[in-house]
Amino acid sequence: MTPEPSATAELIAVGDEVLAGHTVNSNASHLAIALATVGVEVRWHAAVGDREDDIVDALRRACSRASVVLVCGGLGPTPDDLTRHAAARLLDVPLDESPEALEHMRRIFESMCRSMAESNRRQALFPRGATLMPNDNGTAWGFNIACEGTPCYFLPGVPKELYAMTPGVLRDIAARVEGAALRHVAQLRTVGIGESDMVVRLSELLTRGGDPEVGTYASEGILTIRAIGQRKDEVERLADAIAERLGDLVYTRDDRSLEEVLVRTMSGSGRTLALAESCTGGLVGEMITRVSGSSAVLVEGAVVYSNEAKTRTCGVPAELIERHGAVSEPVSRALAEGMRERTGADYAISITGIAGPTGGTETKPVGLVYIGLADKGGTEVRECRFGANRERNRQRSARTALDMLRRRL
Amino acid sequence: MTPEPSATAELIAVGDEVLAGHTVNSNASHLAIALATVGVEVRWHAAVGDREDDIVDALRRACSRASVVLVCGGLGPTPDDLTRHAAARLLDVPLDESPEALEHMRRIFESMCRSMAESNRRQALFPRGATLMPNDNGTAWGFNIACEGTPCYFLPGVPKELYAMTPGVLRDIAARVEGAALRHVAQLRTVGIGESDMVVRLSELLTRGGDPEVGTYASEGILTIRAIGQRKDEVERLADAIAERLGDLVYTRDDRSLEEVLVRTMSGSGRTLALAESCTGGLVGEMITRVSGSSAVLVEGAVVYSNEAKTRTCGVPAELIERHGAVSEPVSRALAEGMRERTGADYAISITGIAGPTGGTETKPVGLVYIGLADKGGTEVRECRFGANRERNRQRSARTALDMLRRRL
Repeated sequence: MTPEPSATAELIAVGDEVLAGHTVNSNASHLAIALATVGVEVRWHAAVGDREDDIVDALRRACSRASVVLVCGGLGPTPDDLTRHAAARLLDVPLDESPEALEHMRRIFESMCRSMAESNRRQALFPRGATLMPNDNGTAWGFNIACEGTPCYFLPGVPKELYAMTPGVLRDIAARVEGAALRHVAQLRTVGIGESDMVVRLSELLTRGGDPEVGTYASEGILTIRAIGQRKDEVERLADAIAERLGDLVYTRDDRSLEEVLVRTMSGSGRTLALAESCTGGLVGEMITRVSGSSAVLVEGAVVYSNEAKTRTCGVPAELIERHGAVSEPVSRALAEGMRERTGADYAISITGIAGPTGGTETKPVGLVYIGLADKGGTEVRECRFGANRERNRQRSARTALDMLRRRL
Repeated sequence: MTPEPSATAELIAVGDEVLAGHTVNSNASHLAIALATVGVEVRWHAAVGDREDDIVDALRRACSRASVVLVCGGLGPTPDDLTRHAAARLLDVPLDESPEALEHMRRIFESMCRSMAESNRRQALFPRGATLMPNDNGTAWGFNIACEGTPCYFLPGVPKELYAMTPGVLRDIAARVEGAALRHVAQLRTVGIGESDMVVRLSELLTRGGDPEVGTYASEGILTIRAIGQRKDEVERLADAIAERLGDLVYTRDDRSLEEVLVRTMSGSGRTLALAESCTGGLVGEMITRVSGSSAVLVEGAVVYSNEAKTRTCGVPAELIERHGAVSEPVSRALAEGMRERTGADYAISITGIAGPTGGTETKPVGLVYIGLADKGGTEVRECRFGANRERNRQRSARTALDMLRRRL
């Protein structure tokens, strides 16, 4: 058992679209991860629809059990937006119009060359006694107020607006909620290792419920390790120890994606890349070009799905494909080398494999992928055997290729 | 106000990983959408951690207010998995071991050539009196039992397993829960129209709270329209009326993605496609090749990010790029035609634009994209002006290109 945390939170999402499943409640995920950095453990999530009674019920219950409550959504201009009314009812106070919030809204509408609808005025209403929380990205200001002694934060449901307001909310919570305090956070991101292997490798460094506390989170082949603690020097020392233990598995010590690190590294030193993708169909190119500034790095990509394209564009001899098959070590090598030659890029990546679910044979099963990397020093080809899931094979192939490039750089 | 629905549901997610935000609660979204098809309105979501007290509390409250309760997660083999224990405690019954569930688990481990750990035995425990719900995709069987008179379904948290069990759960709920009944569902998916335009266009056909009821849901540029009702003929008649009103905006009357419809249509008639992508960097290729069987359609794709690549691979004269700029109608046209010529494909798509956030000028702002489509009948180029968001520009460019192709087919 982990010890009882000193501060707990409940998150309440308000909105029919969340309840009905048309919007996934990603705000809850964002806030929970953020609250961990001020030492607050989220212990309850709730979602209710656009019904005043249900919002009041959820609020009352949350205030009775959590140290702090965060409510998202229901602050819009329509009659369905009832969060402010529910808060006022629970507190038994009237709603007052805020001249500052009204003025802010007028300016936003002006900047869009539109006049403000009368219905928007309700967005300037706040329960009497609330502290207003300006929103730079939309018309819905947030507010906070203690309900039955528990600090409650009411925030807009639009993720972009919520995210921008989160740091201010955290500072406020750290200052006001007993047991909460700004923590120091150190983060490392790794590629090429699974969560269970990581647990074994870090063993005693992975402390739960301690200070600093270390957690690992896997997402799309990237494993993030986060140390959170009250003392900066201790957090940094622990992160250093983890980084040393993991060596070159760590690709960054911040929040960046693997693609972003690669693009920055390569553009910083003027190096260029070309791609020859078969089973990934353009996924690696798509990932690289998500990064603004990738045009300085990516010279050209080829989606060479057909054998003819492999020959035409990457100069792979038809006879080589005939002899070894399109999914083979020699063809992967020829693809990478041919693409590098064609484009004059410093590095060329090739991916050829059987993504599935069909197309596998006894000797070449679904999930068999060859990944090639060519540069002036030579060509490396890695044989991978992934599983039967088409989409996962493609994702893992792309991630592995980028990791091979990272190690070469 | 919509009338009070006859059957309401509460969804409870169990698991520290959901609470802490490392797993987004997409199961709730899946179940809520599914429950609408049996006339059950989800009115509350809750999530609690791996604490028996909290699970019992959440269950008790849900049973006191909902017509039916669905609980996901906490059925695994570890000591943290406490859902079965919480259910038994609330019901005040013991947990009994099920020989059938145990045998099922043994067979799964056998098929993986592994022996079953003793700890897995707890997955064969069920509250006395529960009806077991087999799980073909994992070791955790589900179960259902009435708690304080309310039917409760306990399901695994792994999405793949949960999704496979959902149809059985819906049939059971339709048969057991008062006010619930299997409904008829007709779905249309559209591309190329926004939600607010759709609302105007369908106007009186968009009935809320009626029977049949019509809802619209937007996701990634695709707008889905769903009619749900008790009588099949009425649902079909309404869907036909909507389809007629929308004409060629409708690309399918089932669940398929736009890419899938395109690949099936083209492979069915032996037609082929080539791509020349600049600002989308391989995104269109990636989307097309998500579809199994796309190798019969996609001949070749080129990610021609650099001007040199546009000339080298698509034969765009350097002089043309010099004169008009890479983001221009003539270059888009030359890219599509050059790619078609190079590959001999029946159709070629080109995309060249300024994705942002930098690179815009007075005359060519961020968001300006030219999309070309060439076939034997000629070449069409569409000028689009999207917004300032890089990722959204890329997505909208890709979607628009696929929609142009669909209309041409």
